[in-house]
Amino acid sequence: MDRGVKKISLLHLGIGNVGKEVVAQIQAQKDEIVKQFGLDLVYCGLFTVRNGVFAPDGLSEEKIRNDLSEARYAPVDIEKMVLHAIDEMETPFILIDTTASDSTFPFLEKTLKKGGYVVLSNKKPLAGSLKQFENLQRLGKNRIYCETVVGAGLPVIQTLKNLLITGDEISEIQGCFSGTLGYLFSQLDTGKKFSEVVMQAKKLGYTEPDPRDDLGGVDVARKALILSRFLGQKKELSDIALTGLYPKEMGMLSVDEFMSEIKKLDDEYAEKVKNAKTQGKVLRFVATVTQTDCRVGLEAVEKTSDIGSLQGPDNIIIFKTKRYFDNPLVIKGPGAGLAVTAAGVFADILSSAQIITGGIHE
Amino acid sequence: MDRGVKKISLLHLGIGNVGKEVVAQIQAQKDEIVKQFGLDLVYCGLFTVRNGVFAPDGLSEEKIRNDLSEARYAPVDIEKMVLHAIDEMETPFILIDTTASDSTFPFLEKTLKKGGYVVLSNKKPLAGSLKQFENLQRLGKNRIYCETVVGAGLPVIQTLKNLLITGDEISEIQGCFSGTLGYLFSQLDTGKKFSEVVMQAKKLGYTEPDPRDDLGGVDVARKALILSRFLGQKKELSDIALTGLYPKEMGMLSVDEFMSEIKKLDDEYAEKVKNAKTQGKVLRFVATVTQTDCRVGLEAVEKTSDIGSLQGPDNIIIFKTKRYFDNPLVIKGPGAGLAVTAAGVFADILSSAQIITGGIHE
Repeated sequence: MDRGVKKISLLHLGIGNVGKEVVAQIQAQKDEIVKQFGLDLVYCGLFTVRNGVFAPDGLSEEKIRNDLSEARYAPVDIEKMVLHAIDEMETPFILIDTTASDSTFPFLEKTLKKGGYVVLSNKKPLAGSLKQFENLQRLGKNRIYCETVVGAGLPVIQTLKNLLITGDEISEIQGCFSGTLGYLFSQLDTGKKFSEVVMQAKKLGYTEPDPRDDLGGVDVARKALILSRFLGQKKELSDIALTGLYPKEMGMLSVDEFMSEIKKLDDEYAEKVKNAKTQGKVLRFVATVTQTDCRVGLEAVEKTSDIGSLQGPDNIIIFKTKRYFDNPLVIKGPGAGLAVTAAGVFADILSSAQIITGGIHE
Repeated sequence: MDRGVKKISLLHLGIGNVGKEVVAQIQAQKDEIVKQFGLDLVYCGLFTVRNGVFAPDGLSEEKIRNDLSEARYAPVDIEKMVLHAIDEMETPFILIDTTASDSTFPFLEKTLKKGGYVVLSNKKPLAGSLKQFENLQRLGKNRIYCETVVGAGLPVIQTLKNLLITGDEISEIQGCFSGTLGYLFSQLDTGKKFSEVVMQAKKLGYTEPDPRDDLGGVDVARKALILSRFLGQKKELSDIALTGLYPKEMGMLSVDEFMSEIKKLDDEYAEKVKNAKTQGKVLRFVATVTQTDCRVGLEAVEKTSDIGSLQGPDNIIIFKTKRYFDNPLVIKGPGAGLAVTAAGVFADILSSAQIITGGIHE
C-alpha cells in the first residue's frame, strides 16, 4: 500500500441484491479510489439475516466474494455478531445498511455513539417512530448519509440539505417516488384497464409479490415522511394523509382473491382517467410536502407539467423554495434499480470517508 | 465561542453581485453553522479588482459589511495583497473566487500548493488553457470545488463526479446552459421575430451589454469544455465545435451597428423555426459532450423532449450513462441568478469546510 493511504473500515448489513452490487462496485473501483483519494475502503464485516463474516483487520478477497445467502456457516446469533463487530472497530468506521429491516436501529445507534458513520439505503430507521428518528439525529446528524432513501441514486437528499443549510426556505417539495406506480399510470394514460395493467406489472416483476404493497402507497409515504422530518415536521407515519389505490376492505383478501377482484376497480379508474383527460390532465401518484403538511395520493395533474409528462418508471422531485420560486429545481430519472441505488450508496460511502479522513492533501 | 468549534478562514476574491450575496448568506447562517456543524466560517480577506481588506485573525463585522466598490481606501497593489494574504493564512483555509477574471490562476495555484481549498464560481481558471486546468488538477484535484460553474446552484458537478468515481460510464451529457438563450428560443417558439426578441432581451437586461457575448455561445462552450475535461478529454476552447447565432462578419460591427443590422437575420430564423415546427420540433441552443466529442450550437429537437419542453431561462442537463441508460438522469431549473449561484458557492464552502475539519464528532 502506498504511503499516506488511509484505511476506512466498512461493516455492511444486508448483502441482498443491492448489497451485493455495492460490494461489487466498491471492489471494482478500489484501486481508483486509492489513487484519486488516498482512501483504502476495507471490508471488515458482511452480514445477512442468517449469516455473517467478520475480521477486524479486513476480510480476504475470497470471503468478500462468498455468497452469504448459502448456509455455508453454522447458524449464528447475528445480532450479537454485529454488536461485537461494532465493538471491535477502531473509530471512525462506516456501517452500511442496505437491508429492508426495521430492526437495525440498535446497530446504527451503537455505531453513532462510538463516533462511526452510517450509510443507509434502508428507509425504515428514518421512517420509524419519530423518537427513533430524533435519537439518530441527536447522536450524529452529520454522520448519517442516506441519499438513496428517496429517488435511489438521484441527488435528492444532499440537494435538500444544501438548500436548508444555506438558508433557503422550502415552500413545497412535490414528486413521484414510485417507479412501479409511475409505470402503472403511464400505462393507464394509453387507455388500458387498471386490472390489466396491475396484472401485467405483477407478471413482469415490477410490483412486489403482493401488489398491494405498492398500491397501498406506504413506501411512498415513508419517503414523504423522511422529507417532512428533514423539514422539521414532527410527524409519525400514521400522520401522513395517505390515500391508497384500493379500498380498505380489499386489504383483508388473500393475494389471489385480490388479483381476481381487482377488476371491480376498472370502471372507477376508467372514469377518473376520462375525467382527467377532458381537462387536459393525467393521473399520477403524488407526494406533497410543505412546511406543515404531508400528503400522498392520486392526483390529476396537467399533462404538460413536469409531473404529468413523467414517463414509465421514472421518479421526479420538484423543490419550490424562496430562491427557486418562479421556476423550481427539478430532478428526474430512474428512482429504483440495483446499479443506480448501489452507486448512490457507494457515493455516500465516499463522501463520509473523505470527511472521516479530513481530506487528502496532495 | 463554544468548546469544540473549529475555525475555517476564508479569503474571497470578487465582491461583486454574486460575491456580496455569498457574504450575506454566510453571515446570515453563521450561528446555524456553528450549531449544526461546529464550524465557524471566519472572513479574513475580501478583495475586488481595486480594493481589499485583510486581517489574518478575522475581519470585523464592520469591515465585512463595507462596500469595497467605493474607493474608500488608498489604491493598492491587489495582486501583491492577495498573495500576501495567502502567505499569512494558516492551512487549511478556503479561497473563494467569484470573479469573472482570467487572472486568478496564480492565487488558486498558491492556495493549492499551500494545502488550502478553493471554491470557484469563476469558470475561467477551469476553461482556460488545458495546461492550466491540468496544473490545478495535479495540485489539488480533490480540493477544488466548482459546483456553480455549470447550472449555478443545480447539482451538476457533484452528480457527474459521483457517476465517474462509482464506476459508471458516461455515454453523453447534453444540455442547455444559457438562461439568456433559453429565454430567446422559448420566445421564438411563440412566433416572434429574432431581432425583436434579442432587442427585448437586451432592454430587459437579460443579455450582456453586447448581446453577441451571449449569441456567440462562448460562455456555453466554456461550460461544455469544463464538462469534457472532467470526462478526461484533453481539449482547448478552440477545439470545441461551436456554431454561434450570428455570422462571423457581424462580429466586426459596433454594438449599435449590430443591433440595427440584426433584422437581416429574421428571415433565416423564421425559416428555421418553421422547418422545425413542421417536424414537431423546436430550436434550442444545445451543448453535447460525449467521450470524444464536444459540440455547441443550434439544434432542432422534439418539442415534447426534455430539452424541447424547456421554458424560459431554465437550464437543463441530461446524463446518459451505462447505468442511466433507458431513462437518463435529468436536472432542470434556473441556471443563473444571484441567490441560487451564491447558495451553490456557499454549499461548496460548507462541503470543503467539513472535509478540512475531518467532520464533527457529536
